[in-house]
Amino acid sequence: MKLGDWTVRAVREVSYRVTEVVDLLAPGNDALAEAARCSPGSRRLVLVDENVLSLRGEEIRAYFTDRRVVPVVVGVPGGEATKTLRWVEKIGLAADSAGLDRRDPIVAVGGGVLTDVAGLAASLYRRGTPYVRVPTTLIGQVDAAVGAKTGINLHGGKNRLGSYHPADHTLLDRGFLATLPQRHVANGLAEIVKMAVIRDAVLFGLLDAEVEDLARIRLSGETGQRVMHRAITGMLAELEVNLWEHDLRRVVDFGHTISPAVEMAADPVLLHGEAVSIDMALSCVLAAGRGLLGHADTARVLTLLRRAGLPVWNPVCDLGFLWSAVEDSVRHRGGRQSIPLPSGIGTCVFVDDVTEDELRVCVSELHRLAGTEAGIPA
Amino acid sequence: MKLGDWTVRAVREVSYRVTEVVDLLAPGNDALAEAARCSPGSRRLVLVDENVLSLRGEEIRAYFTDRRVVPVVVGVPGGEATKTLRWVEKIGLAADSAGLDRRDPIVAVGGGVLTDVAGLAASLYRRGTPYVRVPTTLIGQVDAAVGAKTGINLHGGKNRLGSYHPADHTLLDRGFLATLPQRHVANGLAEIVKMAVIRDAVLFGLLDAEVEDLARIRLSGETGQRVMHRAITGMLAELEVNLWEHDLRRVVDFGHTISPAVEMAADPVLLHGEAVSIDMALSCVLAAGRGLLGHADTARVLTLLRRAGLPVWNPVCDLGFLWSAVEDSVRHRGGRQSIPLPSGIGTCVFVDDVTEDELRVCVSELHRLAGTEAGIPA
Ligand SMILES: NC(=O)c1ccc[n+]([C@@H]2O[C@H](COP(=O)([O-])OP(=O)(O)OC[C@H]3O[C@@H](n4cnc5c(N)ncnc54)[C@H](O)[C@@H]3O)[C@@H](O)[C@H]2O)c1
Ligand SMILES: NC(=O)c1ccc[n+]([C@@H]2O[C@H](COP(=O)([O-])OP(=O)(O)OC[C@H]3O[C@@H](n4cnc5c(N)ncnc54)[C@H](O)[C@@H]3O)[C@@H](O)[C@H]2O)c1
Repeated sequence: MKLGDWTVRAVREVSYRVTEVVDLLAPGNDALAEAARCSPGSRRLVLVDENVLSLRGEEIRAYFTDRRVVPVVVGVPGGEATKTLRWVEKIGLAADSAGLDRRDPIVAVGGGVLTDVAGLAASLYRRGTPYVRVPTTLIGQVDAAVGAKTGINLHGGKNRLGSYHPADHTLLDRGFLATLPQRHVANGLAEIVKMAVIRDAVLFGLLDAEVEDLARIRLSGETGQRVMHRAITGMLAELEVNLWEHDLRRVVDFGHTISPAVEMAADPVLLHGEAVSIDMALSCVLAAGRGLLGHADTARVLTLLRRAGLPVWNPVCDLGFLWSAVEDSVRHRGGRQSIPLPSGIGTCVFVDDVTEDELRVCVSELHRLAGTEAGIPA
Repeated sequence: MKLGDWTVRAVREVSYRVTEVVDLLAPGNDALAEAARCSPGSRRLVLVDENVLSLRGEEIRAYFTDRRVVPVVVGVPGGEATKTLRWVEKIGLAADSAGLDRRDPIVAVGGGVLTDVAGLAASLYRRGTPYVRVPTTLIGQVDAAVGAKTGINLHGGKNRLGSYHPADHTLLDRGFLATLPQRHVANGLAEIVKMAVIRDAVLFGLLDAEVEDLARIRLSGETGQRVMHRAITGMLAELEVNLWEHDLRRVVDFGHTISPAVEMAADPVLLHGEAVSIDMALSCVLAAGRGLLGHADTARVLTLLRRAGLPVWNPVCDLGFLWSAVEDSVRHRGGRQSIPLPSGIGTCVFVDDVTEDELRVCVSELHRLAGTEAGIPA
């Protein structure tokens, strides 16, 4: 008898929703109750960032109890130290003791740390439980909580364990940003500048016109809404065609080539968006050196980053360090550099042939620019 | 400006291979090297069940080193106690220190415990790493290692955390079964009897003709191969159309309604297949009571289970316990009983309306039958 040889083939359809809302926690607003499929008498596990819990905890509880839903609220600290398997386990045990039915969604209210760890727990609990995200930081609203990726860190390896498990529904309320520390506003703006430079010249214009005001009023108001809308539309369009990252050439990796190394090494600590800002600045200088981006546009980008409250330089940026960061990135991108560079503001190309010599010239050029008006060293 | 509302849609195609092989570890056999994409000079993380490691460790190492591949071998103990997040973390750290490239497969050689925990680690490592399974127990070869499910336990909650992440390639070598303890052979036979009763009368005939011999020679030989081939073909056909279990009415859940509760409660401990055997016996008696299965066929199934070395009764089986086990199962199956019952040998229907009274009658009928030749109490 011939030896058996089988091939199993299947197709999984995934879809998820992202919706802007106003006054999410107002008693009359049904958006969250609908997303979390709250029926009177049911229970919901509600994971809340601890800072948000102290600011908005009463409103959150009241929102559910007013609808005769029991919220089992668990406070989760913000910050990278929460991205552990230990927290995945804690959330799994909380889901057990909340006594959820098989398809009851988990609700996650907080920054990128909370939505990353809650998303991973939801993806694993009973091999996949629906969840709802309410991002409360700017980086959450424009990046972490609108995609499919979840993750935790493993002994210093960032996002070393994770999954692709988008929330069924993500609700964006810019009102949460009112209490966000200014540095975290700038942190989120970095990812918005990224979308502007590589795919949306109109968005760049909006930011360029009034970035200081936008940051100060935390994207409230009409221009803030337009900015968020364009940033998210661009982000989702890029994700939708490559949700599982089978294609390792991603325009959204602009600013994400040397930034992981810079983020790990910088002392005092840099936030993710701050490291991305430095990477974008260096990438623009590289693009300028190749004649892809004009010198005036390069200066505009660097100036915009500085105006947004972001650094364009860090003392760790010596040539040896940055070149090994490029080499690390090559390993993650399947053996090619695949570095996204702007070719004019609003468009982007990939390059695979940056050399150490070219990098040397650009690093000293960036260092020089960073000392001029375009960007005083942070 | 209107509030934003986006829907992201994407489709993921999954395919994986399952292949029967002979003498997997023979130096001249390329099957494993090809599945693991071994190129000279590369390294592979090879996770091996500790019992298999002491029996076959030298052959495993030699297989790789003969091909100039460095095997980073990690021994993993069998048994449920290994199905923890702690082991997922250990495997993640081992993958880090083995220095794998982004798409190098992990190799998992062992029973269902090892392939479940290795599969989960692979699904999470860098948000999804390919892996190869070499199941070494019968339950691994016909069930655990041919599907997509991975999992670990959480404080007594069986498979509470897990994912759907099939190995790219699973290699089945019945030769590994030569050293398997007899009780674990019977354990795997339970899942084969399951496939026979609910979808394959020919398979039932093969088992019925010589199950004692098959168990004794551990499915070596031609009939063993036919049995495995039919069992796996049936299993994969059922899985392929429902890989993510969106449909909660699964014929492969035959024998899996009250068995999780029986498996948890029995003292001394029951293996998974042993609990499934008791559940199948009870299900057949239920089917007989409804006129779905003839009394002669019911006796044939019970007798076959006993001949395979499996129990059809356990002292935990009192009415209150079993009824609450049915209720638990309803919660897992989205609110309906969806109990698969044989309607003749080789076909199956689902029922949703078993009552406590009906169960009472069947439990005492099974108890009576278990004391007769069809099945002396285990
Ligand atoms: N999954 C993805 O695709 C993705 C994308 C980008 C970033 N991330 C991850 O996101 C994380 C960073 O996210 P983050 O910057 O939001 O970190 P965070 O969740 O730690 O939040 C930052 C700080 O803001 C506080 N906070 C949150 N909401 C607040 C509010 N409304 N008012 C006042 N304080 C508030 C938090 O308590 C915390 O101290 C990183 O771990 C990163 O890896 C993930
Ligand atoms: N993922 C799935 O779809 C699925 C399906 C069925 C069962 N399972 C899981 O499988 C697990 C049970 O699998 P199992 O019964 O293989 O348990 P196991 O992996 O613990 O193996 C049983 C015993 O056999 C030993 N062993 C393994 N191979 C051997 C060999 N060739 N010779 C001698 N000894 C050997 C092991 O060391 C262990 O002591 C359970 O955790 C169950 O949840 C998963």
